[in-house]
Amino acid sequence: RINSDRLWDSIMEMAKIGPGIAGGNNRQTVTDEDGEGRRLFKRWCDAAGLEMGLDEMGTMFARREGTDPSLPPVYVGSHLDTQPTGGKYDGVLGVLGGLEVVRSLNDLGIKTRHPIVVTNWTNEEGARFAPAMMASGVFAGVLDQADVYAHVDKQGKKFGEELERIGWKGSEKVGERKIHAFFELHIEQGPILEDEGIDIGVVTHGQGLKWLQVTLTGKEAHTGSTPMPKRRNAGLGMARVIELVHEIAMDYQPDAVGAVGHMEVFPNSRNIIAGRTIFTIDIRSPEKEVLDAMDGRIREGIDTICEALDIQYKIEQVGAFDPVTFDAGCVKAIRDAAERLGYSHRNIVSGAGHDACWINRVAPTAMVMCPCVDGLSHNEAEDITKEWASAGADVLFHAVVETAEI
Amino acid sequence: RINSDRLWDSIMEMAKIGPGIAGGNNRQTVTDEDGEGRRLFKRWCDAAGLEMGLDEMGTMFARREGTDPSLPPVYVGSHLDTQPTGGKYDGVLGVLGGLEVVRSLNDLGIKTRHPIVVTNWTNEEGARFAPAMMASGVFAGVLDQADVYAHVDKQGKKFGEELERIGWKGSEKVGERKIHAFFELHIEQGPILEDEGIDIGVVTHGQGLKWLQVTLTGKEAHTGSTPMPKRRNAGLGMARVIELVHEIAMDYQPDAVGAVGHMEVFPNSRNIIAGRTIFTIDIRSPEKEVLDAMDGRIREGIDTICEALDIQYKIEQVGAFDPVTFDAGCVKAIRDAAERLGYSHRNIVSGAGHDACWINRVAPTAMVMCPCVDGLSHNEAEDITKEWASAGADVLFHAVVETAEI
Ligand SMILES: NC(=O)NCCC(=O)O
Ligand SMILES: NC(=O)NCCC(=O)O
Repeated sequence: RINSDRLWDSIMEMAKIGPGIAGGNNRQTVTDEDGEGRRLFKRWCDAAGLEMGLDEMGTMFARREGTDPSLPPVYVGSHLDTQPTGGKYDGVLGVLGGLEVVRSLNDLGIKTRHPIVVTNWTNEEGARFAPAMMASGVFAGVLDQADVYAHVDKQGKKFGEELERIGWKGSEKVGERKIHAFFELHIEQGPILEDEGIDIGVVTHGQGLKWLQVTLTGKEAHTGSTPMPKRRNAGLGMARVIELVHEIAMDYQPDAVGAVGHMEVFPNSRNIIAGRTIFTIDIRSPEKEVLDAMDGRIREGIDTICEALDIQYKIEQVGAFDPVTFDAGCVKAIRDAAERLGYSHRNIVSGAGHDACWINRVAPTAMVMCPCVDGLSHNEAEDITKEWASAGADVLFHAVVETAEI
Repeated sequence: RINSDRLWDSIMEMAKIGPGIAGGNNRQTVTDEDGEGRRLFKRWCDAAGLEMGLDEMGTMFARREGTDPSLPPVYVGSHLDTQPTGGKYDGVLGVLGGLEVVRSLNDLGIKTRHPIVVTNWTNEEGARFAPAMMASGVFAGVLDQADVYAHVDKQGKKFGEELERIGWKGSEKVGERKIHAFFELHIEQGPILEDEGIDIGVVTHGQGLKWLQVTLTGKEAHTGSTPMPKRRNAGLGMARVIELVHEIAMDYQPDAVGAVGHMEVFPNSRNIIAGRTIFTIDIRSPEKEVLDAMDGRIREGIDTICEALDIQYKIEQVGAFDPVTFDAGCVKAIRDAAERLGYSHRNIVSGAGHDACWINRVAPTAMVMCPCVDGLSHNEAEDITKEWASAGADVLFHAVVETAEI
C-alpha cells in the first residue's frame, strides 16, 4: 500500500500555490502560479531520484529507470493546472498519485523491468486556452502544435508565448516517446461512486465532447428608444441558444449533457442592446451518434433563432473528442488491483475529458476514479477524503507495478 | 438663425476626444477623456465670455449675464459623457447647441433680461456608474449625493473619487440654483422623425424606466460530469429571464420596451456551469401602470424560473424614473419656435431618459428633438445631418430667447 499521509500532505502543499478565493485553487495553465507548481513538483521528483524530461508543449516527464531501460516505460499522471475557480484534487491527485507510486517503490526497494514515467500534461483544463487536454492532444497527433501555440486567452496572449515566458517550454519533440501503457488516477467529478458508496471506479469509457464557439452579430441600439420590432438583439439570441442547448441535452439525458458556461457581451452596457455576443456551447455524450445528432439540432436551431431575430451567426468548433473505449488489458489491470486490494468497485464512464482520452489513441490506456463529495468539481469547494485518495492511489500502484513487471 | 457651420465644427472637434473604435466615441463619465472634453468646453465658454460655475457633482454651468441679473436664468444644455461605444451627437448636440445659442446672441449683440446658463450635466449615460442622469437626479433632489458618490464601476472605482481624480469636483452645493426654465436639445434616438420626414420633435412626454439588477446564485459544477438533474445553472436562469423580459415587453409594445444589455457570468469558463450571474433588466413605458405591471410580472417570473432551477435570486432597483409630462409653457415655446421658423414638427414622446426629465420636477422644462439616421443611437454609427442639427439648434435658440426675454 502507498503512504497515504505523504500523498495527502503533498496535495495540501501543492494547493498552497495559486490559492483561490474560496478554499480552492486558481492555478491556470502557463501562468506564474503554474510555473511555481511545476517547480515544486520538480523538486519532489529530484528528491525521488527521477530524471525530468520536458517537451515543446511543456509537458513534464519524470522517469524512474527500469531494470531493462530498453523497454518502453509505463506512464502515469494527469495535470497540475486548474480552473480559475478550481478544486485541489482535479488533476493534482493523478500527478501526485503517480509520484506516490514511485516514492512507494523507492521505500520498498522494488525495481520494475519497465521504466516508470510520472507525467504532468500541460493545459488539461482548457479554461484559459481552448481546447482542453491540449498537450496530450498534440502528443497524440490530434492537435497541431503550431496551431495551438497561436491560441489566445481573453487578454489576447498567445499560449506558445506564455509557455515560453514562464520558462517551461522544453526542447523535446512532442509525441515521440514510446508508451508501454498509460494510467491516470482522477476524481470522478460526478456523484455515482459516492451515491453508491463504492471505493473505486474502473473507467471503461469516456464521453465524447464538442465545444462550439458561437458569435452572434446583431446591432447595438438604445434600449429605450428603439422600437421592439426594430431590434436585432444578440443578447436575446444568446439567451435562446442557451435554452436550446439545455432542451436538447434534456431530450437525450442521461446519455448526454449540455450547457453554456462561457459568455461575452458587447458592449455590455445597461442601456445598449447587445450588438455582439460570443459564447461556447459544451455538449457531451458517450454515444457518438447522440453527439452528432445534438450538434445537428443545435446548428439548425441557431439558424432558426437567428433568422427570427435578424442576426448573423458564426459557429467555430474549438474543441472536440469522440467517445473513448479504454484498453481492455489496462482496464483489467485496474479491476484486478481493486479486487486484490479488497476495494469495492464498479465500471464507470468518465463524464469529463482527460489526458487519458487522447493518450488512449497512441498507447494502451485506462483510468482509476475515486469518489468526490457531492459529485462536485470545477468548484473551489471540490472535496475528497484521504481514504478515497489513498484507495485510488493503491489501485494505481498495483496496476502500474503489475504492468511495469517486477 | 444660428451658425450651423460653427455648431457642426464644434461637434466634430469634441468628437476627437475619446474616439471610439468605429467612428464614434468612448468618453465615459469621469474618465480622463471626460476631463479633456470638459476642458475644451470650458475654453469655448471662456472665449464666449461666459462665467463657469461647477457644483459638487461636477456639473458645469456657463453663465451669460442678463440685463436683469436678479432674474433666475434660463438653462439650456445636456451632457458630454458618452456610452463605451457611443455616438458623436447623443448629449453633445444639446450642450454645444446651447453654446451655439449664446454664441449667436453674442454675434447678434442681443441681450436678454434673464441670464442664460449653458449646462453640462455629469454622468447622464449611466454606463459606467448607474443610474443614468445622475447629476441632474441629485440636482432635482431625487438621488442622494453621498449615496451616488459611493457607486462603483466594474473595476470597483467609486464615482465620487473618480470625479475628484479628474479634477472636476466643484464646491458649489448641488440643487441650490433657481431655474427659470430648462430647454434640452437632443437627437431622437428613435426612428419616427426620420421615417416621417419631420424636422422637429416637440417632446411632450418622456417614458418612465426601471433598471433591475438581478443576481442569480446557482452552483459551479463540471459541465461534463454533472448529471442534468443535479445542475443549478445560473447561466440558464439568466437566459430564461432575458427571454421573459422580452416576452413581457412584446406583450405591451408599442407602449413598452424591455431588454437586458448588461450581463456578467462567473466564473465564465467553458467547462463550468455558471455559479453566479449578474445582469440588469431595462424596462420602459410612457404609462406608469404599464411599467408597474411589467415590474410585477418580471419579479413573479424570476421567482418561478429560479424555483424550477433551484437557484437563488436577488433583485436591486439601480435606476428608476416615472413617466414625465413636460411643462406646457415650455413645450409651447418650442412648438411656436418651430412654427415661426417654418420647420415641420410633431409631438413626440422621448423613448430615452434625459436630464430634462429630472429637471422638469424642479423647474418648467421641455425638449427639442431632431431626427437621427435609422433611429440609431448608443452605437458608434449614430448619425445626423448638419441640416437636422441646425434646425434643432434654431428652434432651441428661438425658444430660449423667447423665454429669456429681450
Ligand atoms: N477532467 C476535467 O475536468 N477536464 C477538463 C476538460 C473537460 O471539460 O472535460
Ligand atoms: N439619452 C440617453 O441615451 N440617455 C441615457 C439614459 C437612458 O438609457 O435613457
